[in-house]
Amino acid sequence: MQASAINLADKLATFSAHWSPRVIAEMNDYQFKLVKFQGEFVWHAHADTDETFIVLHGQMEIGFRDRNVTVREGELYVIPRGVEHITRAEGECHALLIEPRGIVNTGDTDSTLTADNDVWA
Amino acid sequence: MQASAINLADKLATFSAHWSPRVIAEMNDYQFKLVKFQGEFVWHAHADTDETFIVLHGQMEIGFRDRNVTVREGELYVIPRGVEHITRAEGECHALLIEPRGIVNTGDTDSTLTADNDVWA
Repeated sequence: MQASAINLADKLATFSAHWSPRVIAEMNDYQFKLVKFQGEFVWHAHADTDETFIVLHGQMEIGFRDRNVTVREGELYVIPRGVEHITRAEGECHALLIEPRGIVNTGDTDSTLTADNDVWA
Repeated sequence: MQASAINLADKLATFSAHWSPRVIAEMNDYQFKLVKFQGEFVWHAHADTDETFIVLHGQMEIGFRDRNVTVREGELYVIPRGVEHITRAEGECHALLIEPRGIVNTGDTDSTLTADNDVWA
């Protein structure tokens, strides 16, 4: 059991690398991860799971093949399983990611942006 | 697929009832729920699942039989499955709850505070 609550801002202050999610807590077989990013990621999909972004700072765009969705600070978006998407941010964006344990950030796409998995903040 | 991002503040503005969680999104078989509360809830446990609180406004205390944990705005706490707990807040608190679909707010405890389940904001 967590000894105390997890402060999101405190955990965000412990790293600066972009596109490199850090696990901060687990709920059943799901993980809460903080991520910082700027620029454009790679097109990918997660065949077996939805994936949730909650923007904590700045704003991001989630690109789909047929549309773009803007997610601003204080907003939440659930990307459906199996749907190709790309994340982008003009300025630095900080987000809380929620997804099952073991999900790789680049999904089904090999990329230099593929991050080590299960790294804790 | 969501047409647009879900703004947490906008959704919080749509209701005022206490201890009455409102679903705002689903991820796989999990739900994101907003809840407002003040005062003290009832002791209960959820035998089969962890339960996550992220405080969006104000602060709350999660009481366990052997300790209390304070969760402030911008903080996250995961209550482990099967552990008896009670939630309290001196002032009004707004939180984002994350737990599997079908979880009743009072868990294994019958109470006048048992809320209708699966009510969407």
